[in-house]
Amino acid sequence: MTIQAISWSPSGAVRIIDQRALPEAEITQDLESAESVADAIRQLQVRGAPLIGIAAAMGLVAALRDHRPAARARFLARAKELGAVLNAARPTAVNLGWALERMLRVAVATPGEGADLWERLRVEATAIWEEDRAMCRRIGEHGLTILADGANVLTHCNTGALATGGIGTALAPIYLAHERGRRVHVYVDETRPLLQGARLTMWELMHAGISCTLITDVAAATLMRQAKVDVVLVGADRICANGDFANKIGTYGLAVQARHHGVPFYCAAPSSSIDDSLAEGDAIPIEQRPADEVKIVAGRPVAPADAKALNPAFDVTPARYVTGYITERGLVKPPFGG
Amino acid sequence: MTIQAISWSPSGAVRIIDQRALPEAEITQDLESAESVADAIRQLQVRGAPLIGIAAAMGLVAALRDHRPAARARFLARAKELGAVLNAARPTAVNLGWALERMLRVAVATPGEGADLWERLRVEATAIWEEDRAMCRRIGEHGLTILADGANVLTHCNTGALATGGIGTALAPIYLAHERGRRVHVYVDETRPLLQGARLTMWELMHAGISCTLITDVAAATLMRQAKVDVVLVGADRICANGDFANKIGTYGLAVQARHHGVPFYCAAPSSSIDDSLAEGDAIPIEQRPADEVKIVAGRPVAPADAKALNPAFDVTPARYVTGYITERGLVKPPFGG
Repeated sequence: MTIQAISWSPSGAVRIIDQRALPEAEITQDLESAESVADAIRQLQVRGAPLIGIAAAMGLVAALRDHRPAARARFLARAKELGAVLNAARPTAVNLGWALERMLRVAVATPGEGADLWERLRVEATAIWEEDRAMCRRIGEHGLTILADGANVLTHCNTGALATGGIGTALAPIYLAHERGRRVHVYVDETRPLLQGARLTMWELMHAGISCTLITDVAAATLMRQAKVDVVLVGADRICANGDFANKIGTYGLAVQARHHGVPFYCAAPSSSIDDSLAEGDAIPIEQRPADEVKIVAGRPVAPADAKALNPAFDVTPARYVTGYITERGLVKPPFGG
Repeated sequence: MTIQAISWSPSGAVRIIDQRALPEAEITQDLESAESVADAIRQLQVRGAPLIGIAAAMGLVAALRDHRPAARARFLARAKELGAVLNAARPTAVNLGWALERMLRVAVATPGEGADLWERLRVEATAIWEEDRAMCRRIGEHGLTILADGANVLTHCNTGALATGGIGTALAPIYLAHERGRRVHVYVDETRPLLQGARLTMWELMHAGISCTLITDVAAATLMRQAKVDVVLVGADRICANGDFANKIGTYGLAVQARHHGVPFYCAAPSSSIDDSLAEGDAIPIEQRPADEVKIVAGRPVAPADAKALNPAFDVTPARYVTGYITERGLVKPPFGG
């Protein structure tokens, strides 16, 4: 069964899986207030850009439950306050601001008092979630064409049900292939430093009953040399107009290995990840994260305390390494057009 | 100052640095008996093939201190018993058996009683250590030619003072360059799964005052793309007649990246690592280690308990990726000759 990373609780709270606790513990939490949703986003209990947007929209609705009896003006003022609380959770996630802006715009445009506005917001939050879920399935459908029966896929980081409201982006074709009875096996890069592959991707694939094997990131090259990988399938954080794209550190190295070994290399992402304002990849700002993410694993130091460490969160893969881009619109190539 | 991984204690015990405790704690231990040396080898407190051989030879001497008053036959019998204890510590390390065999052969060939034999064994153990130390320096000298002033070197795993009796194999040219006042900077692959780069190489380079930066293994590709790496320098566990070689998993991927980005790629090892009996790399048996080394980091699970994981300890790099081999005999190329 595919994991559901988010849902409404029976009482209308936001029910999440605590991703920080995975895979050691499988903890479901019902978040009742804007503060608790913001905390969950801040502490990476909920992660993945699409999922963060959905969580914020649903969190706004959950937090406004108590304000349904309020008059229109009071309800709108409270919605804005709570939206600000949620929006402050992680300033860099573009989906967060986008989802909250959409919710507040809808509230303002809806006639009536608190109860009317709240009903409309609940519909809108569910719509944001449903749209994401549908987008995931469309990516999956288009990606199916590259997964023959018996395919061995190699993937990096987590781009699945735990990162979205549906079956993910790069994992979506794998879920659909499995659903349709195609045999598919996934080699999962552990994805240092934060180990999203080991902790999250392995966990959700195993839950879905999909055959998967964890590897250290460096083992990928040897698997390709041994012709054990038929296709590499990764996500993207931002795709430039020319097709260069940023994704989790390690993606570029995989692209080089795939090219060297003649393995097709695909990038799967919603078309909203295509940023036409950036001509090419070197213009993408790369977030440098704290050295301690490399130096401390599972709470224990694995390097000298005063060691210098580089920790770029992303790398840039030039378009020439990419066999194709899978979006909800189909299998596309740059220039992507408007 | 370069770290000394092993030495005689004032009382004639084997003084080691507990490598299992690094980098969290810097613990020196004096091992008095064959059992304690065998335990230290078994538990990876002492590691690195050359160092294991030295530790076993010195351990035999330390353990035989009490038997100096013994008659010849009794001393030799005891030496054989203690040699067997030491030899059982790690059955796969070739240097272990080699060093102990050499020690016992010398004991048998030496005339006199226990005290005479013991003195000779102490000289022989010290000779094994000194030969290794000299071999490291010769590798360093020959390797110096590839390190220009200001060079940025990338290395993998631990091939330094903590793996040998001297300044290491692949790290030896770096130590010598630093000693001679050349500016050199080392990018250190953390080396998953056991993190020897993060835990050991960073620690010993920092102790020596050599400029170094820790990176996740997957960041190497991006550094090469950014032209930040001038040369890649790795060790070898076994080199075949044609130049294919086995080394820590991740080495092959580095070799591909180096080739792709036009970065010279050197392999440094004692000529005793050249195995002329193997024609090519695919004949090298690759040790598959327990999945838990990937799934558990610093004592904490980082993947689902029942996850399948591959953990090959080594990979094979074909000779065509290697710019040159640095041994104590010089900068060589296959066929290596007899």
